[in-house]
Amino acid sequence: MDGQDRVRLGVVQFACSDVAEENVATASRLVRQAARQGANIVLAQELFEGHYFCQEENPEHFRRARPLDDSHPTLKAMRALAAELGVVIPVSLFERRNQAHYNSLVMVDDKGAALGIYRKSHIPDGPGYSEKFYFNPGDTGFRVWQTRFGTIGVGICWDQWFPEAARTMALMGAEFLLYPTAIGSEPGRPDFDSMEHWRITMRGHAGANLMPVAAANRIGTETVAGRTQTYYGSSFIAGPSGELRAEARRDGEAVLTADFDRAELRSNRAAWGLFRDRRPELYGALATLDGGR
Amino acid sequence: MDGQDRVRLGVVQFACSDVAEENVATASRLVRQAARQGANIVLAQELFEGHYFCQEENPEHFRRARPLDDSHPTLKAMRALAAELGVVIPVSLFERRNQAHYNSLVMVDDKGAALGIYRKSHIPDGPGYSEKFYFNPGDTGFRVWQTRFGTIGVGICWDQWFPEAARTMALMGAEFLLYPTAIGSEPGRPDFDSMEHWRITMRGHAGANLMPVAAANRIGTETVAGRTQTYYGSSFIAGPSGELRAEARRDGEAVLTADFDRAELRSNRAAWGLFRDRRPELYGALATLDGGR
Repeated sequence: MDGQDRVRLGVVQFACSDVAEENVATASRLVRQAARQGANIVLAQELFEGHYFCQEENPEHFRRARPLDDSHPTLKAMRALAAELGVVIPVSLFERRNQAHYNSLVMVDDKGAALGIYRKSHIPDGPGYSEKFYFNPGDTGFRVWQTRFGTIGVGICWDQWFPEAARTMALMGAEFLLYPTAIGSEPGRPDFDSMEHWRITMRGHAGANLMPVAAANRIGTETVAGRTQTYYGSSFIAGPSGELRAEARRDGEAVLTADFDRAELRSNRAAWGLFRDRRPELYGALATLDGGR
Repeated sequence: MDGQDRVRLGVVQFACSDVAEENVATASRLVRQAARQGANIVLAQELFEGHYFCQEENPEHFRRARPLDDSHPTLKAMRALAAELGVVIPVSLFERRNQAHYNSLVMVDDKGAALGIYRKSHIPDGPGYSEKFYFNPGDTGFRVWQTRFGTIGVGICWDQWFPEAARTMALMGAEFLLYPTAIGSEPGRPDFDSMEHWRITMRGHAGANLMPVAAANRIGTETVAGRTQTYYGSSFIAGPSGELRAEARRDGEAVLTADFDRAELRSNRAAWGLFRDRRPELYGALATLDGGR
């Protein structure tokens, strides 16, 4: 399942209303635009069905979660779109399964098939980002999917701060690392801005793993229960040296694309030697929380 | 051993001759200058005793290696300097022990005491950087040292490309990550330049571990056995969001400093939550070379 070497990676960025059908329509419009521009893989932002409800801790929001089965309306729409356009679409959704709730992602291939689910491993918690109230820590471990356009690994938002996740997906064969995300202002900290920190950390994953990394972030100001947060967009595609290959502004819808040659990326990774020179026997402390001593 | 909170980190950058005494004199002059500027910890570049001999594979160069005991002239000089100035100096040296050879570092504290040795874990090999010919892969594992100015972790050159090393040192309690290095042009690739890739990857470690990262690189053009390489300097100090706090040019001696407050850094790390939200049970693949399946 080696697929084609020349791949155009696409990222879309938009503001979300709190009506799922409207957001599916916006996502579909922008994914179509990316496909018209030749994109083979199109990444949209985290939980794009609605507002980023994790601004507050409110039991009502659990109603947003659904089983990720064939009846899921957003998933159905995105699968049909992927098949129609022949593009791969990773779809971020709030999943309910029995008593558990996950911040999940379904990888949809260019035939519209759902290849499997990844459940967000790292769950943040802080003012304005109360995800621990809603989501079980994911139980799938990191995953990668072989598609016609290469092997794709996806981390979800907070996962993007963990070099462990990026490296693990790379070791599992990922050729592209994608991060749907929802990040912006923080309540009570008007001067605080994590945008460059956020980009540098992911560009670092690109540089350290010698592979493209893309992030799709929402834009717009959302008011949830009287509290307001502004998401800073700035979605981007980085190349294998961490260089910015395409970037969106802090506001405004965007469709980004960048071209990569998988054979060239593979050859560059091998020649650079990082994956040859690793010392797994020295990495035991990574499996601890405090260095282990 | 908690020491003082406000710490001034220093980095020096210079061209090396192939005469150890000359380079020790240059290093000493610049370390003195950094100390006059108030630096508490001063990082100098990798293997600054001489030319970067790994440009070629030549058995003669093994004569450069010495046991890292009290008779080592460069180590003695740097220990005396550290004690005189009251600064911490990590010293990069070519170590011989019995039949083994290591690319090593001795951590010298502000009293001139040698706190211990770290041996470079990741050994590169490629045109112009034939380190596998000379160095055993280090057997110490990653190390951190408690000093009056905080807990310091050091990786050596190629180690800087491995998020595993940075994260491990952070988990072991590091508050500053330092990288002495020797990197520049590559033979037969006049248009190739890894400088930004090199910086972005380390700035990514700073961002992902929420702590300062500094690198000291040599400058100058060195001819070894008729082959020429130019080292690109560009030494820098990054803050805990990966932001550049001080940077040197590609040429020219430099003394960089940047100020940090350890209590503030610690509080920021805890509040950010990355070290709270890790999932060690999902990191098993990091201990493999190929993802393990």
